[in-house]
Amino acid sequence: MSQPSSVPQTFRAIDVIRKKRDAVELSQAEIEGLVNAYTKGDIPDYQVSAWLMAVVVRGMTRPETAALTDAMLRSGEVLDLSSLPARKVDKHSTGGVGDKTSLVLAPLAAAAGIAVPMISGRGLGHTGGTLDKLEAIPGFNVNLPVADFRRVLATCGCAMIGQTAEIAPADRKLYALRDVTGTVESPYLICASIMSKKLAEGIDALVLDVKTGSGAFMKSEKDAVFLAELMVETGERMGKQMVALITDMDQPLGNMIGNALEVVEVVEVLRGGGPEDLKDLCIELAGWMLHLGGASKTVTEGKQQSAKLISSGKALEKFRQMIELQGGDPRVIDDGKKLPQAQHTTQVQSSKAGYLSSIQCEQVGTACVILGGGRERKEDSVDPAVGIVLHKKVGDRVEAGEPIATIYYNAEAKAARVKQLIAESCAVTDAPPATRRPLIHRVIGKSGEKN
Amino acid sequence: MSQPSSVPQTFRAIDVIRKKRDAVELSQAEIEGLVNAYTKGDIPDYQVSAWLMAVVVRGMTRPETAALTDAMLRSGEVLDLSSLPARKVDKHSTGGVGDKTSLVLAPLAAAAGIAVPMISGRGLGHTGGTLDKLEAIPGFNVNLPVADFRRVLATCGCAMIGQTAEIAPADRKLYALRDVTGTVESPYLICASIMSKKLAEGIDALVLDVKTGSGAFMKSEKDAVFLAELMVETGERMGKQMVALITDMDQPLGNMIGNALEVVEVVEVLRGGGPEDLKDLCIELAGWMLHLGGASKTVTEGKQQSAKLISSGKALEKFRQMIELQGGDPRVIDDGKKLPQAQHTTQVQSSKAGYLSSIQCEQVGTACVILGGGRERKEDSVDPAVGIVLHKKVGDRVEAGEPIATIYYNAEAKAARVKQLIAESCAVTDAPPATRRPLIHRVIGKSGEKN
Repeated sequence: MSQPSSVPQTFRAIDVIRKKRDAVELSQAEIEGLVNAYTKGDIPDYQVSAWLMAVVVRGMTRPETAALTDAMLRSGEVLDLSSLPARKVDKHSTGGVGDKTSLVLAPLAAAAGIAVPMISGRGLGHTGGTLDKLEAIPGFNVNLPVADFRRVLATCGCAMIGQTAEIAPADRKLYALRDVTGTVESPYLICASIMSKKLAEGIDALVLDVKTGSGAFMKSEKDAVFLAELMVETGERMGKQMVALITDMDQPLGNMIGNALEVVEVVEVLRGGGPEDLKDLCIELAGWMLHLGGASKTVTEGKQQSAKLISSGKALEKFRQMIELQGGDPRVIDDGKKLPQAQHTTQVQSSKAGYLSSIQCEQVGTACVILGGGRERKEDSVDPAVGIVLHKKVGDRVEAGEPIATIYYNAEAKAARVKQLIAESCAVTDAPPATRRPLIHRVIGKSGEKN
Repeated sequence: MSQPSSVPQTFRAIDVIRKKRDAVELSQAEIEGLVNAYTKGDIPDYQVSAWLMAVVVRGMTRPETAALTDAMLRSGEVLDLSSLPARKVDKHSTGGVGDKTSLVLAPLAAAAGIAVPMISGRGLGHTGGTLDKLEAIPGFNVNLPVADFRRVLATCGCAMIGQTAEIAPADRKLYALRDVTGTVESPYLICASIMSKKLAEGIDALVLDVKTGSGAFMKSEKDAVFLAELMVETGERMGKQMVALITDMDQPLGNMIGNALEVVEVVEVLRGGGPEDLKDLCIELAGWMLHLGGASKTVTEGKQQSAKLISSGKALEKFRQMIELQGGDPRVIDDGKKLPQAQHTTQVQSSKAGYLSSIQCEQVGTACVILGGGRERKEDSVDPAVGIVLHKKVGDRVEAGEPIATIYYNAEAKAARVKQLIAESCAVTDAPPATRRPLIHRVIGKSGEKN
């Protein structure tokens, strides 16, 4: 898979389109020919969009998915981090509301001696993005050139930047086309897009956090498991150590949603506090990162070690070091007031007594977008200060008039709408919910090594 | 269906693409919005090609197919022939090898008092085209302006031209895109393409000749029947009288393949001679045209009347009149030498004695293309003089060394290749074939009126 295969002289896009249309398996050379020709501009958008639609409807085999990932990966630069002695491990989440684990995990795994070369994205739609959260820290530069990225990584063991123009250009071009042709929603294309970018980081292992529930892209667990298995197998075919955790996104993760607010919660967790669900998930994912990175014999040991790196303050020190190395103001760690502050707050109160039985998670994410904390379109800018702090989680007792959430806002006009949206998102019932969704639904791949 | 429905203000191509991708039925307004926006250039090729691929794979319901046909029809001019007192009836064939029935049927039905406003196409790939055959007649003009077309039709009852820029521009634009995006092969899109052009002729009734067998686009009878039913129902939904005959194209129709040669065979049939299969099919199709056009009470009566119009010479006179009115040299009728003549001939002889058990019909069509008598690409020109004359039909006895076919050619280099191809196409076996394929496989629609 890692050797470029020769593209036959007779490559014709129309033949590849027809084969996929007729559900015939494509060869590696055909997929590579199509991706390379498109990246170079040798075949037009209208042929590729027809092919993408055929892929969405017909699906792909595992070898096809791996071939597509490989071709997209090799369309650009693949970082060579072999000069770093540490094993390189990254974590990727399919996105959710209040998901700030990356900011905890990169310094935490680095504190265990693992190298974490993390290339992340921005928020879009109801989900937040790691880069936006980092940029809430005054001065933090997510646009480091590759040489600086490498230097930060070598110095402190972790570095967090945005995608560069050199990495997987085929994905950028294909994604822009998918976005306008109704061809985003395909696990095969999603897998190739994610994996091509992640594998370009030059990593040895990858921990995937595949979200499921009302705030996730994959609302159903079945779809989440399908995508997770696809990504795990694709990574393994390309020689990487892989694991995927199917985790809950039926309510926001932690209590805080909004870029600066989430940095506050990250610091809480790195100080040993923070909400249980966020803390537990970070420890779980870190356990896997340490284990796959060779820093612990088992996942359980990796989790214990992670907890110690938090209680000793070593993980927080790594976070401080990374912020400094990337030009950010490390005082935000000791003084949350150094982060952007919203001008106003208002509370959402429960209209009746009972139990918080569900939270429409996607709506909470949308509420944050309305406040200006996220984007509807890629070109929108975000307001780092605004957001929502939840005071209750699903299953909690709530009294009439008791605050469920606090809204941090700058524009008066939007507060009322968001207040109503949050109120509508939170269902209060007389009895507590009969069942509680687990935080970790399932582990895909490597399950024999779990304990 | 005939009233333009209002396109909602909120029309977004992406929503229509997504719905079709997810196999949700589209409304008439959505289909019309897409077709109109594309024809006007308001949405890009890459969105429409994604939609076309979704249609190919997901299919369309009957109302969707009718809505697409209607939108494409109304993208351009619809001829208003209401000033002509006669009923307007046309025939359309899905294309084959040696299929020259249009040249017989237009004057034959016109001789019975029916108006035949026939707008035809050119040959492409292994199939011939009516326009190419007509242009083998020196001077014959297939590019009449609509006013002249109308005048010829009013004068002699039939007129035969090519598609004008004003008719169904959406089809022209969509077909060009389908051609390069692997989205030609869909019965729904084929139906809408054919029917939008035919219904733009302002006809009252349409007889469809849907070919099946080794020389047809629809190799299997199942596919041919599916397309036929789709076209019949679409036409009926739009208020037209419709019938489709599923006819055999497992061997060339008649004995002659090649443009000038086919005109010779047309004249033979109009003189009461010609090969049995061609003659029978012409009478069958004419019977339906006369019946649907109100010139006969039954199809059987229509066939009897057609046979009389041939034996009386009236059909041939109509052909002569139409040739004259369209600028052609009518002397070709009396003297075949006035048609373009190939410089050389060569014979294909049977290598052994036995029975001709099958002819690879598509290969015979391809042989004619190689000689220069057809086109591989739309922009190719054709040589009217070249072609193939078959001396045997499937089931015929053949002796060793006896000629099976004569090749008419102008380029020496191509003759050897074509000779071999024809020899390979014709299988000679010791015993005659056990079964004979019927000429008419089935009649779709109006079957109660057959006799």
